[in-house]
Amino acid sequence: MALKKAGVLGATGSVGQRFILLLSNHPDFEIHALGASSRSAGKKYIDAVSWKQTELLPESAKQLEVVECKATGPFAECDVVFSGLDSDYAGTIEKEFVEAGLAVVSNAKNYRRELDVPLIVPIVNPEHLSVIAKKLSDAKAEGKPKPGYQICISNCSTAGLVAPLKPLVEAFGPIDALTATTLQAISGAGFSPGVPSIDILDNIIPYIGGEEDKLEWETKKILGTVNKAGTQFVNIPDEEMKVSAQCNRVAVSDGHTECISLRFAKRPAPSVEQVKQVLRDYVCDAFKAGCHSAPKQTIHVLEEQDRPQPRLDRNRDNGYGVSVGRIREDPVLDFKMVVLSHNTIIGAAGSGILIAELLLAQKLI
Amino acid sequence: MALKKAGVLGATGSVGQRFILLLSNHPDFEIHALGASSRSAGKKYIDAVSWKQTELLPESAKQLEVVECKATGPFAECDVVFSGLDSDYAGTIEKEFVEAGLAVVSNAKNYRRELDVPLIVPIVNPEHLSVIAKKLSDAKAEGKPKPGYQICISNCSTAGLVAPLKPLVEAFGPIDALTATTLQAISGAGFSPGVPSIDILDNIIPYIGGEEDKLEWETKKILGTVNKAGTQFVNIPDEEMKVSAQCNRVAVSDGHTECISLRFAKRPAPSVEQVKQVLRDYVCDAFKAGCHSAPKQTIHVLEEQDRPQPRLDRNRDNGYGVSVGRIREDPVLDFKMVVLSHNTIIGAAGSGILIAELLLAQKLI
Amino acid sequence: MALKKAGVLGATGSVGQRFILLLSNHPDFEIHALGASSRSAGKKYIDAVSWKQTELLPESAKQLEVVECKATGPFAECDVVFSGLDSDYAGTIEKEFVEAGLAVVSNAKNYRRELDVPLIVPIVNPEHLSVIAKKLSDAKAEGKPKPGYQICISNCSTAGLVAPLKPLVEAFGPIDALTATTLQAISGAGFSPGVPSIDILDNIIPYIGGEEDKLEWETKKILGTVNKAGTQFVNIPDEEMKVSAQCNRVAVSDGHTECISLRFAKRPAPSVEQVKQVLRDYVCDAFKAGCHSAPKQTIHVLEEQDRPQPRLDRNRDNGYGVSVGRIREDPVLDFKMVVLSHNTIIGAAGSGILIAELLLAQKLI
Amino acid sequence: MALKKAGVLGATGSVGQRFILLLSNHPDFEIHALGASSRSAGKKYIDAVSWKQTELLPESAKQLEVVECKATGPFAECDVVFSGLDSDYAGTIEKEFVEAGLAVVSNAKNYRRELDVPLIVPIVNPEHLSVIAKKLSDAKAEGKPKPGYQICISNCSTAGLVAPLKPLVEAFGPIDALTATTLQAISGAGFSPGVPSIDILDNIIPYIGGEEDKLEWETKKILGTVNKAGTQFVNIPDEEMKVSAQCNRVAVSDGHTECISLRFAKRPAPSVEQVKQVLRDYVCDAFKAGCHSAPKQTIHVLEEQDRPQPRLDRNRDNGYGVSVGRIREDPVLDFKMVVLSHNTIIGAAGSGILIAELLLAQKLI
Repeated sequence: MALKKAGVLGATGSVGQRFILLLSNHPDFEIHALGASSRSAGKKYIDAVSWKQTELLPESAKQLEVVECKATGPFAECDVVFSGLDSDYAGTIEKEFVEAGLAVVSNAKNYRRELDVPLIVPIVNPEHLSVIAKKLSDAKAEGKPKPGYQICISNCSTAGLVAPLKPLVEAFGPIDALTATTLQAISGAGFSPGVPSIDILDNIIPYIGGEEDKLEWETKKILGTVNKAGTQFVNIPDEEMKVSAQCNRVAVSDGHTECISLRFAKRPAPSVEQVKQVLRDYVCDAFKAGCHSAPKQTIHVLEEQDRPQPRLDRNRDNGYGVSVGRIREDPVLDFKMVVLSHNTIIGAAGSGILIAELLLAQKLI
Repeated sequence: MALKKAGVLGATGSVGQRFILLLSNHPDFEIHALGASSRSAGKKYIDAVSWKQTELLPESAKQLEVVECKATGPFAECDVVFSGLDSDYAGTIEKEFVEAGLAVVSNAKNYRRELDVPLIVPIVNPEHLSVIAKKLSDAKAEGKPKPGYQICISNCSTAGLVAPLKPLVEAFGPIDALTATTLQAISGAGFSPGVPSIDILDNIIPYIGGEEDKLEWETKKILGTVNKAGTQFVNIPDEEMKVSAQCNRVAVSDGHTECISLRFAKRPAPSVEQVKQVLRDYVCDAFKAGCHSAPKQTIHVLEEQDRPQPRLDRNRDNGYGVSVGRIREDPVLDFKMVVLSHNTIIGAAGSGILIAELLLAQKLI
Repeated sequence: MALKKAGVLGATGSVGQRFILLLSNHPDFEIHALGASSRSAGKKYIDAVSWKQTELLPESAKQLEVVECKATGPFAECDVVFSGLDSDYAGTIEKEFVEAGLAVVSNAKNYRRELDVPLIVPIVNPEHLSVIAKKLSDAKAEGKPKPGYQICISNCSTAGLVAPLKPLVEAFGPIDALTATTLQAISGAGFSPGVPSIDILDNIIPYIGGEEDKLEWETKKILGTVNKAGTQFVNIPDEEMKVSAQCNRVAVSDGHTECISLRFAKRPAPSVEQVKQVLRDYVCDAFKAGCHSAPKQTIHVLEEQDRPQPRLDRNRDNGYGVSVGRIREDPVLDFKMVVLSHNTIIGAAGSGILIAELLLAQKLI
Repeated sequence: MALKKAGVLGATGSVGQRFILLLSNHPDFEIHALGASSRSAGKKYIDAVSWKQTELLPESAKQLEVVECKATGPFAECDVVFSGLDSDYAGTIEKEFVEAGLAVVSNAKNYRRELDVPLIVPIVNPEHLSVIAKKLSDAKAEGKPKPGYQICISNCSTAGLVAPLKPLVEAFGPIDALTATTLQAISGAGFSPGVPSIDILDNIIPYIGGEEDKLEWETKKILGTVNKAGTQFVNIPDEEMKVSAQCNRVAVSDGHTECISLRFAKRPAPSVEQVKQVLRDYVCDAFKAGCHSAPKQTIHVLEEQDRPQPRLDRNRDNGYGVSVGRIREDPVLDFKMVVLSHNTIIGAAGSGILIAELLLAQKLI
C-alpha cells in the first residue's frame, strides 16, 4: 500500500521533533511537508532545527525543505497534517487548514472544547472519531467534496489519568469523585526555553498555568458521550463527576506521575483485586484494530510497592502503555493508586500518530 | 541563668548533627554529652563524625568526646537528652534513659503511639505537655523523686500537615476528611546511605515505607485530646476524621511539599478569605511563651500562584515557619492548598529543640 | 558616618537582585536608585521584580520606585553605581554614567579589556585601583571636576581561579602553564531564562559561550601589572603564561568547581606542603583594610580527600572565601588541585560590593 | 551454530544485571549459569534480584535458578563466564574458576595489573588477546588440557579515554603528555547503595576512590605492547607518557564526560583537521571481525560546539560508540577535546560481551 502523506506544522519545536521521529520509518506514513515560521522557511530541516532528542535526527528528514505553514503547496497534498504549533499560532493556521479540506491532528489546546471536535486519547476513546466519520459520510451523501476536519490530542496529564478510568467506568459504572495530584516532567513544557533550570533544580513548582482546569475539564469530555445526532460531544455533567486536580512540576525529564483517588457512584464498591483485574484485562480498541503503535498491554498493573517510577517505567510499550501501581483502598474515597504515563508519547505526539493510525484503520484518511 | 545541660544520642547521624548545630550558641542550652555507637565512643567528635551539613561543624563541638549511649556519666547529669537514634536502637536506650530519671526528647518513632507519651509539634500542640507536668507534680505530691519522661517529635511530613490544621480546627470546627499527597525531600531519609542517587535522579519514588500510616495516625493524636485524668492521649476517632495520605520521594534536598484537600464537618464551610485570615493570624503558643526558636510568623500565607517552593521558602523563620499557598476551593472536598515545611527543622531536630525550650518555659526541666 | 548612596542598574535581573540583598542593612551603603528598563520604570520594586532569591526580598527595598537607567535624577546623586546590566545594554548606559561623573562598578563584560579600566577581584588585586586614584588626583591637580570612572568585576570562573594563584605567584614566582577545567553552576547563566532545565537535568553542557576565552584572558590582566605612568594595565604576555580552559555547565545551583593544574617557571618547584602553607597564610588586603565583607580566611585549604564540594563549601565566609582542596603533585605540570568559589558572591555581585568597600576605604568615593 | 553457554558471576548486582540484559536474545550466547551470594542461591532470579534497569527484566531470565559462585555444576559447563563480582569477592572466586579451566571475563579490578592478564577495551586493543591465543596453543602443543584464563575489562573512565587515543597514536606517534578531567555518572558506583543522593543533588564530589590511579595506570597498559615471547604485557614507561587525571562524580545517570588535553611527542603536531579525520576514519577491529555488538562508527566526531552531551549522545551505536567533540588547539599541550562514553556499556558489561564476541571470532572459546 502506498504510504500516506503526512505534514507536520511547528516542525522545529519540541512536539514537532517528536512527530518527525515517530514518522520516520513508520510503515503507514511518509513525511511530505514540514512547516515552521517564516524565519525557518526555505532552509533544510537540519539547518532550521535545534535538535534536542536523545535519538539522532533521522537521515531521511535532514535534507527536507521547511516551508511556511500554509494550506497550499506540499501541505495541500497531505493525507494528514500533525500540528505541534504553539497555541498562539494554532488557532488561525489550523482553521485555515481545515477549511482547505485537510485532516488536522493537533496537540494545541485551541479547539479542544469545540462541541464538534473530537478530543482523543487513542487508547481510551477512539469511538469518538464516529463524529468525523459521520461528517464525511454526510458530506458524501450530500454530494459535497470531502471536508476537512480537526481532531485534538488531549492535554498530557489528562491522557495518563483517563487511561485507567475508562475500563473502570466500563466495568463498575460512573466515578462520582476523583482527585489527582500530579508530578509532571519538564519535557511537558517544551524547550524554548521551557522550565528554567534554576526553578526546578532542588525544587518543585506547585503550579502549571491552566493545567488543573484542563485536567478537570477534559476528563469529562473524553469519558463523555456523543449526542443522538452523532455530531457533537456531551461532557459528563459537573454534578455527576467531581474532579479536583493539583498540578506540580518536578525535576523529571519524561513521564508524568499522578497520585489519584476515586469513588464509584455505585455501592458496594468493587474490591481491590477486581479493580486490578479489570485494568490488567483491558485491551484498547486501537490494538484490536491492528494499529502499528498501539500498546499490546494498555495498562501495566505493577505489584511492587514502590512502582511505577518514571525513569524505570515510562517506556513500557514504547511509551504507549500506561503503568498503574499501589492500587489500594482509600480512607476518604474508594481507591487510591499511582498512574504513570509518558507525556511526550501517549501525552502528546505519540497519541497524534496513533490517532492517525486509527483514522487509517477506519478509512477516514 | 546557668545554661541547661543537653545530651545528644545518635550524635553522629543526620538528626544528631542537626541537634548539635542548633544547640551551638543556643542561649538556653549547652552540649554536655554526645552519645554514639561503641565504634565511635572515646573519639573526639570531629574524628567520629562524617559531617554533612552546609554549615561548618561548630568549633565548640569538635573536641568533645563521644561516649556510649548509657544513662550514666555525663548523660546522667543532663537536664534534657535529645535522641536522634535509629529506631533499631531507640527503643531500648531511650527506655533506659527514662527509667534513670532523664527527660528524653526523641525523633525516633518507637514510642509515638504510647498512650502516655506526648507526640509534639511545638508550634501546634504544646498543651499536650500538660501530661508531663501532671506526672511530675503527681510524683512530687507523692514525695517521689522527679521521674524521667519521654516526649516524641512527630514524623516529618506530619509536622507540616498539622500546622495549618490546628488554627483551622480551632476556628471552624472539626475536619472530617483530609487528603495529602506529599513530595518529600531526600534529607528525610538520612544519609547512611539514605536514598541512593540512582533511585532519585530524573525520577520519583512513589513510596516511603510506613510514612502514609504515620501521617494518617499521628495527625489524629496531635489534633486529639487529653483524657479527663490528664494522664493519657485520646486520638480523634477514625470515623470522625478520615485521613488519606500518598507519599512520594522527590529530588529535593530539604523541604517537604504537601498538596492537601480538606472538608470541615460543619456547614456552611468558611470562605477562602476566612481560611487565609485564620492562618495569617495564628500565633503559636511557643512564640507567646517567648521561646527562642519559635517562629514570629507561624504560618506564612503566600499569595503568589506558584508558591510555596522548597528552594525559595523552606527557610522562613529559620525553618520553624510553615508556608501555605494556593488556598482555593476544591471541587471534591472544601479546600485545597499547598503546604511546605522544613523537614529537618520543624519536621525533626528543630522541633526537638523548641520542645525543650517549651519545657524550660514551663519549668519542666 | 553618613551612608553612601548606592544605585543599582539592572535592578530586576539576577545580578541586580543580589546587589540589593547585599546592600540591604549594609553598614556603609544605602540604596538610593534602582534602575531597570522602561517597562519597569515607575513601578514599585516589588511589583517590577520576579524575586528569585532564597532570602526574602528585603522590606526596605519593596516600596522603592524603579526608574529608567539615566544618569540623572536619583542616579546623579549616587556615590557609587553598581551595574548588573546585560551586556547588550551595559555598553551605552555605563558610558553615559561615567561621562556624567559617576563611579560605576559593573558586572558586565563590555569594558573589561579596556586598557585603563581596572578588572578587579577584590580579594586578589585591589592594588589595581591605583589607576583610579591617579586619575582622580590628576584631575584634582589640574583643577578639573572629579571625573567618573569605570571598574569591572571579573568573570565568575576567573574570580575563583585567580584567588589561589595570587599568593602562589607572590611566593614562588611566575606560573608558566595553567589548565583549568570548570564545572559551573547554573545561576551563572541568570534566570531569564538562563539554562533550560531539559538541557541540564541528567546532563552536562560542555560549552559556555565566550567563557574559556574570558578565563584565559582575564587571568593575565588580573595577575598583570600597571604601566610606569600608573595609567594603564599590562597583561602577562601569552608566551610567559600559557592558560588553557575547558568550561562545562553542570546541575549545581551555586558554586563553580574548577580542577586546575599549574607549573611554576622556577625550578625546583615548591613542595605540596609549601603550597598549602602559602594558601593558608594568605590574608587579602581587603580584610587588612577592614572592609566589612572581606573574608577573614581568604583561602580555605581543605584536607578531606573529597572536598571542596559546592553544596557544603560554597558559603564559607559568606561566599567571599575560596576553598581549595586535593592539592597534590601533578604528573604533567607541577601541582593539581580543586578550587571552589561562590559564583554569585565572589564571582559577581558580592565582588562588586567589596570593590565599593575598598573604594570607600581608599577614600575614592 | 549452537549458542555458547555463558555464566554470570554477581548476577544480581548492577554489572550482573547489565550482562543479563545484553545476553538476552544475543545471537551467539545463552545464559547457562547465574551465580550470586549464598543468600540468593536456590532462588529464582526474579526473586533474588532487585531489578533496576530501564529495560524490563527479560522473560527468559526470570525463572532461572541462581546458584552459588562455584566452578562446578552449571558453571563448569560454561564456554565463558562473565564476572560482575565486587572486588572483595572477585579475587578468590575468579582464581578458582580459571584454575578449573574456565574462561573468565571480569569487570573487577583485581587482576588488571597482572603481567599475563589482558586488559581489554574491545574497540581499542583486541590484539592483546594474542597472549591468550598463545597460552592455548602452547598448552595444546604440550598435550595439556585447555587451560582456563582471565581477561579483564578496563575501568570505565579509562575505556572512553583510550578510544580516541588509539587511532591518534597509530597515525601520529606517541603521546607524551595527557591530562583528563572527568565528570562521571553515578551508575558507575553501582546501586547498593552507590552514591547517596544527598551527596550528589545540587553538588559535585571531586573525588572517586582509586579512580585517578586506575586511569593513569591502565592507559599505559592498554596502549602498551606485548613482550617478544608473546606472553606478557609491557606498559608504556611513565617517562615516555605522562598522564594526569582529575576525577569527579556528577549528577548524571549514565555517561562519563572527559575533558582531555594531549601532546604528541613528534613535531610538528598534526592539524586539528587531521586529528578529526583520523578519528572519523577509525574502524575498530571488532567491527571488521563482524562482531555482533561492535560499533559501526567507533568514534563519532561531533561538530556542534556544545556536544557531546551525556543525555543526548551516550547511546550512539547502542553505547559501544564513543563521541568526541570540541576538538581544538590547546595553549598548554597540543589539543583539547571532550570525550563521552557510556560507562555501563563500553565502560563495563558491554565491553565484556564484545570481548567474548572477539574470543568467539578468534575461536578461543
